[in-house]
Amino acid sequence: MMKSDEQRPSWLRDAEPSAGVEGFVFYGGRAGIKKSGADDFGLIFAPEGARCAAVYTQNLVVAAPVTLSRAHLKAASGRVSAVLVNSGNANACTGEGGMRDALESCQLVAQALSERAGRELPLEELQVCSTGVIGAPLPMEPLREHIPIAAQGLTTRGLPDLARAIMTTDTRPKARALSLTLSSGVELRVAGVSKGAGMIHPNMATMLAYLCTDASLSHEQLNALWSRVCDKSFNAITIDGDTSTNDTALLLASGQGEPLEGEDLARLERGLTELARELALDILRDGEGVEHVLHLKVSGARSQEEARRVAEAIALSPLVKTALNGCDPNWGRIIAAAGRSGVALDPSLLSLSIGGSLIYQEGRWQGPESEAEAHEVMRRAEYEAELSLGLGSEELWIYGTDLSADYVRINADYRS
Amino acid sequence: MMKSDEQRPSWLRDAEPSAGVEGFVFYGGRAGIKKSGADDFGLIFAPEGARCAAVYTQNLVVAAPVTLSRAHLKAASGRVSAVLVNSGNANACTGEGGMRDALESCQLVAQALSERAGRELPLEELQVCSTGVIGAPLPMEPLREHIPIAAQGLTTRGLPDLARAIMTTDTRPKARALSLTLSSGVELRVAGVSKGAGMIHPNMATMLAYLCTDASLSHEQLNALWSRVCDKSFNAITIDGDTSTNDTALLLASGQGEPLEGEDLARLERGLTELARELALDILRDGEGVEHVLHLKVSGARSQEEARRVAEAIALSPLVKTALNGCDPNWGRIIAAAGRSGVALDPSLLSLSIGGSLIYQEGRWQGPESEAEAHEVMRRAEYEAELSLGLGSEELWIYGTDLSADYVRINADYRS
Repeated sequence: MMKSDEQRPSWLRDAEPSAGVEGFVFYGGRAGIKKSGADDFGLIFAPEGARCAAVYTQNLVVAAPVTLSRAHLKAASGRVSAVLVNSGNANACTGEGGMRDALESCQLVAQALSERAGRELPLEELQVCSTGVIGAPLPMEPLREHIPIAAQGLTTRGLPDLARAIMTTDTRPKARALSLTLSSGVELRVAGVSKGAGMIHPNMATMLAYLCTDASLSHEQLNALWSRVCDKSFNAITIDGDTSTNDTALLLASGQGEPLEGEDLARLERGLTELARELALDILRDGEGVEHVLHLKVSGARSQEEARRVAEAIALSPLVKTALNGCDPNWGRIIAAAGRSGVALDPSLLSLSIGGSLIYQEGRWQGPESEAEAHEVMRRAEYEAELSLGLGSEELWIYGTDLSADYVRINADYRS
Repeated sequence: MMKSDEQRPSWLRDAEPSAGVEGFVFYGGRAGIKKSGADDFGLIFAPEGARCAAVYTQNLVVAAPVTLSRAHLKAASGRVSAVLVNSGNANACTGEGGMRDALESCQLVAQALSERAGRELPLEELQVCSTGVIGAPLPMEPLREHIPIAAQGLTTRGLPDLARAIMTTDTRPKARALSLTLSSGVELRVAGVSKGAGMIHPNMATMLAYLCTDASLSHEQLNALWSRVCDKSFNAITIDGDTSTNDTALLLASGQGEPLEGEDLARLERGLTELARELALDILRDGEGVEHVLHLKVSGARSQEEARRVAEAIALSPLVKTALNGCDPNWGRIIAAAGRSGVALDPSLLSLSIGGSLIYQEGRWQGPESEAEAHEVMRRAEYEAELSLGLGSEELWIYGTDLSADYVRINADYRS
């Protein structure tokens, strides 16, 4: 029943993020945007170019860099040569000036990289992201000064530096890599970074994720793959239901050969899904005030959409989340959250297990013993639960967190 | 702009809840369901009968008493003679036995009241409500013993006792009354009780509200009126977005004369709306860990539905709620919550004021002074804010609360 049953196949192995991915160089360092003096500028460069699939925030209040990146990706038909990202300032709610600044940042990077690459980089092949304080103009002076230095500092081993440079409220950098062997024996690499997690005013802690692979994929493959992978990773995590104005997740593929097919394409999807899911979980694990991460499976649904509605109602319920914080196998709150999800349930068919302990079966409480077992499981930092609706055969996973007094303290802090 | 501008007209005055309402007698006392020994049983009796409009929980997981009450109201074509309510046990998730127990409780009350009234009470003229522990069978022995005593204890002055008897996690009883003078000079009374607020396992703190009036209304008037009143009161408050399996709000009208019309009907609606809104706000004011109550107006919407979606996205956002807790005029979080509400907004048209201080106008932050003013307002226990969407002329009020570390502590307590 549980995801943990999935054994990792022998063709899939952990790799060092610092070993990089063929076709990409990375940079992370300090431009001087953050007053703390921490790293705040990152670059990804694909000297030969890469194909890119993107998922941007669905929030209608969108920051300038997201608007510009979306337009660039369209104009370049999905081709991307570089991604620039700054932390410390979100360039959001900054009006026309914000758009001018985002554009100038791209121009500065295109110029610096053209020199390095010995070829003209079209502006629309650049993606730009910002994360941090909202409402304040992006400080351009530090960027004008630092971008040429950053371009010189790009290296195949720079992925961990990039992970550090995109942090805002994160307490640790998030970089991961996997190696996979295709059926032909060829080795591929997938590697990536992410950041989260909640939103602390005046910082809106944007969700950013960049994954790179040296696989060769058509644009159609790339887009379909990234959409499926994000649904199982970055779109399957939730801390507080709030989305930022700047959320961006990019998949870049540098391979120049024939597109992958069949079993090899399936292997890549498996590897990418695992990498993305772990990078997404890393965001939860490092979330503000998070003490427990819940892997929740909703099964027995009539459709994916119904499973998602039930899963989100549970994962976002403050009463469920506080119960998780108290390690309390509070089936009443979980069942009640499912009941108000808008999905036409039959309460007498619902079953709930936590960490393999069945505490509620087809509408009936299974007694104090199973609850005591579940309580023990819930003391772990991370565990699985399953709610079966008994209506069909669709299922999906969602990843949520508890709600702690620390979360409130962090987020209620006036002008932190 | 603010609701507080509405002056109360001279024909509307506060009244003593203990003065009662013509046509009703009330009871509240101790049957022995609660282990604490607190009051746990209440009755409303209309010896001549009353017309009733009801709003029940929309949760699909519904407790036996709600299922039975709904069927009764339909069978009796909206006629109600008595309402019985117990606290300490919700009779929810109790299967067929739960339905048997709800039915027996009604039979016991019908029998006891028939003796007192000297006429046979049809079973379907009874409404039954339960609130408290879920999953455990309703203890029938205390009820069998106590119901005849309760029937003898009914009195015109018993409304405050009823308010005490329906409490679960509430820290204080909630009873209110208003007097209103019709254009003819006739006096009417509206009075009611409510209880809330969050849900603490194993108690599901159901929202219950009973309002009584001696006005004369047709069934059609009563249902239309109650639906409009609830939309502006009990359906306009939110603490955590979770709904209980037992929520019930009843309006009972004992008047036997000609139905009210025109100006008089409008006066009654005004009085009922104020009474219901204050009883609903009382639930928030006594909510678990609540330190601030927000009266939020969303204006300039194209439709009521859009206004409601925006208002709920804001009022339920944990990031907004923690900002309220910190008295932080965090417009970024409010704007971002509106942006993800699913309503097609134009960010450049949004304006936000808190307590009359305009901090964000048509997409632009109004500077630190207005924020400092708003911060002072937000230190109050209760205040108003308005988000204008700039799209149309529809508006609505919603009432929400902050999210405090205390809320988490109360709800995370394992087996409290």
